[in-house]
Amino acid sequence: MTGSLVGVLGGVGPLATAYFLQRVVVSTEADRDQDHVDMVVLNHATIPDRTAFVLGRSDEDPAPVLANDARRLQRFGVDFLVMPCNTAHYFTQQVLDAISVPFVSIIDVTVEAALARVPGLGKAGLLATAGTVASRVYHDAFAARGVQVLTPDDADQAAISTVIYDQVKAGQPADVDVLRAVAGRLVERGAGVVVLGCTELSVAAVDHGLLDEPPFLDSMDQLVRATIVTAGHRVREERQPRTAPVRSS
Amino acid sequence: MTGSLVGVLGGVGPLATAYFLQRVVVSTEADRDQDHVDMVVLNHATIPDRTAFVLGRSDEDPAPVLANDARRLQRFGVDFLVMPCNTAHYFTQQVLDAISVPFVSIIDVTVEAALARVPGLGKAGLLATAGTVASRVYHDAFAARGVQVLTPDDADQAAISTVIYDQVKAGQPADVDVLRAVAGRLVERGAGVVVLGCTELSVAAVDHGLLDEPPFLDSMDQLVRATIVTAGHRVREERQPRTAPVRSS
Repeated sequence: MTGSLVGVLGGVGPLATAYFLQRVVVSTEADRDQDHVDMVVLNHATIPDRTAFVLGRSDEDPAPVLANDARRLQRFGVDFLVMPCNTAHYFTQQVLDAISVPFVSIIDVTVEAALARVPGLGKAGLLATAGTVASRVYHDAFAARGVQVLTPDDADQAAISTVIYDQVKAGQPADVDVLRAVAGRLVERGAGVVVLGCTELSVAAVDHGLLDEPPFLDSMDQLVRATIVTAGHRVREERQPRTAPVRSS
Repeated sequence: MTGSLVGVLGGVGPLATAYFLQRVVVSTEADRDQDHVDMVVLNHATIPDRTAFVLGRSDEDPAPVLANDARRLQRFGVDFLVMPCNTAHYFTQQVLDAISVPFVSIIDVTVEAALARVPGLGKAGLLATAGTVASRVYHDAFAARGVQVLTPDDADQAAISTVIYDQVKAGQPADVDVLRAVAGRLVERGAGVVVLGCTELSVAAVDHGLLDEPPFLDSMDQLVRATIVTAGHRVREERQPRTAPVRSS
């Protein structure tokens, strides 16, 4: 291989992993196949359910499996690792303990992007699944930079869950007015950015042109960009049409 | 891992590989993430251009690189290998020589599917790029089963190239009437099926509902199905909406 070989700890979930691979390809500045990023994607679908574990609904711990996958990818020869799932970053430390190559965290690159967009940021909104909210991955990473995370109230969280599960995952159009309204209420409470911390919301964002619409900041988009740049390639700035899977499982 | 781990020799091209991964995920019968196929996808974008080599426009032979990639995936622990690119099957023997695990060929599964659909098939049409036509991968595999391959005349081949390069690859809608007309002329010449032997034509087929429309037989769809079944999973028969990337490089 010439250039960096990116290792992708995937399968959490399988469709999000396919979506990530595709977004990296269409977002890379390239005139020919050979200009693209070399990647090895372990789409390990049968890994134990991370959300069920984080929410205490299952005793099957995905952490040892993720750590072993990370070791296998390192042995394959990857130069760095990424994991295109927000919730799974709950297990980041176990992954880091298993490898010596760098790990580019979707949480860290999103926090950095938020601070780059709004210097002195005090509060950040978070739109995500209950599992990601409960995992506190964004709370902890933002807190380390002095930023408080605001989450929607119960009614708004239920509305976000409807968009994620009943609309995007079901292959239906996302009601982006709901996303805008809930984000607006977080902004009224002081949020300088509103993080889209869930793959389904990333799909909706690409679909409806929210990627560059303040206050939204899409975590998947930030990981796609960080992956391309860390691998030594350039990001294509012209936004691509959505090419994402719209239905899961 | 539980069940089979599928190795994907990818990167030829990168977008086709992402498309293949996504089609496998959305075409698997699954109620939850854990029902999906475990895969490791080597998206080796920087591999030398296989079409340029097949057409004699380059001295850089992709075969040793593909063979080495196959060895690396075998060492990773895959149970069988697939390669989601018709043209690259020109190098099948070199890949087979490098590994001891099975290799599921897109050419072979497509030929088998053609004979299963039309018992006693005498002639098969082929819609593909000039590179795939020149590679003769379909000619040889069909000939081994006593089937003659018919290719479009020069004007029709030019029209197919326009659909591939100027429409699908450029992110424009495919003119499926052209595909139907060219396929119709192959049927008039005696073709019992018309193979779509190019990823861009697969994208167009999914887009416009041609997957189950005679005389078309989509090679990528056949490889997706064979991959799912060989891995011990079930194919979801309800057709999914297109979720494919529409723009390359």
